[in-house]
Amino acid sequence: MFVNRQTQCYNNRMPKIVDHGERKHHIAEAAWRVIQDKGMKGATVRNIAKEAGLSLGALRHYFSTQDELLDFAMGLVKERVTDRVRSIAESELPPKDKALSILLELVPVDEQKMTEMEVWFGFTFHAKYIKQDTDAQDDGILAGIHRLIEFLDGNGLLRRDLDQDIEAERLYALVNGLALHALLESRRLHPERIVQVLTRHLDSICVK
Amino acid sequence: MFVNRQTQCYNNRMPKIVDHGERKHHIAEAAWRVIQDKGMKGATVRNIAKEAGLSLGALRHYFSTQDELLDFAMGLVKERVTDRVRSIAESELPPKDKALSILLELVPVDEQKMTEMEVWFGFTFHAKYIKQDTDAQDDGILAGIHRLIEFLDGNGLLRRDLDQDIEAERLYALVNGLALHALLESRRLHPERIVQVLTRHLDSICVK
Repeated sequence: MFVNRQTQCYNNRMPKIVDHGERKHHIAEAAWRVIQDKGMKGATVRNIAKEAGLSLGALRHYFSTQDELLDFAMGLVKERVTDRVRSIAESELPPKDKALSILLELVPVDEQKMTEMEVWFGFTFHAKYIKQDTDAQDDGILAGIHRLIEFLDGNGLLRRDLDQDIEAERLYALVNGLALHALLESRRLHPERIVQVLTRHLDSICVK
Repeated sequence: MFVNRQTQCYNNRMPKIVDHGERKHHIAEAAWRVIQDKGMKGATVRNIAKEAGLSLGALRHYFSTQDELLDFAMGLVKERVTDRVRSIAESELPPKDKALSILLELVPVDEQKMTEMEVWFGFTFHAKYIKQDTDAQDDGILAGIHRLIEFLDGNGLLRRDLDQDIEAERLYALVNGLALHALLESRRLHPERIVQVLTRHLDSICVK
């Protein structure tokens, strides 16, 4: 009896055992929802704790500052995009379709990607206007686009008369311009039109 | 004597006579400098009054809210860009050079345009994340780019096999993507490279 009561008491005092990484993901997702609903200004540790169903103290156990939390949420976006791009790269799609599918992972053509773009945009603006960072963090997109151009070239698809470096810069600007417009002019710029523009661009740099 | 003293007294109580429009411009320029230095978070009516060398009360005579002030500063950016574009459009430049020069007015290739872009970016961010506007205000750039494509076509320069509507969308995304990168990656993306990318793009949509 004594032993049993002690065990019970011990169990009541211990927090429910949860996976630390899983809990951080759960919090990061709550942070995404708050950013979408209330903007970066509303993405306070307090609001995020409430959305995650945690006490402020419990949340601070995982993230001690708002910056730490936003860094983690942004890291998750990068991880997800990278995973999706990798899985397309490893697929059996024909090279040109593969290139288009990868580009479409970088622009908000569905609700999940729109959320990611909201986080990216919010995070970038927060860094520039609130934290006053001079230049944005490298998100690896430009390097990825360079690899995409090389991939097209390696498969004999890229036109021979092009400067690959300038083409990567041009495609990078096109992709982020479309992403920006999809976010800021969502009522006007629909996913089908984004697909048309990217298809047209790929056609223009590939051999017939 | 009596009359003179009255006049003097009257003069002392009156604010210095200044042109209302000119004073508003002066304040808007002070707002620009504050946004550049302190970000949108620091663009308070108080900071802007200080930068403009005015009391808070004097500033409120011209702009009663921060939103009103930012709207005016953004309006000034549009006006300046429009004036510059119009003067290029009316110049004697050959059509293709004219098109490139106009596009270069829309991307931050010098310090003045970088300030304008900072204001545009800050204003857009403020509208989206602080005021929670769903879509950004139409800044007229897309309409201008449509006219540019028509201008190239009207001068027999645009390739005949292109869908003009898709080309306008593509060029619009390219221009704003370059502008975004020039602002966020200013250490990496230099003006000469922007010129190279836009030249390459114009070449690709024009007849040889």
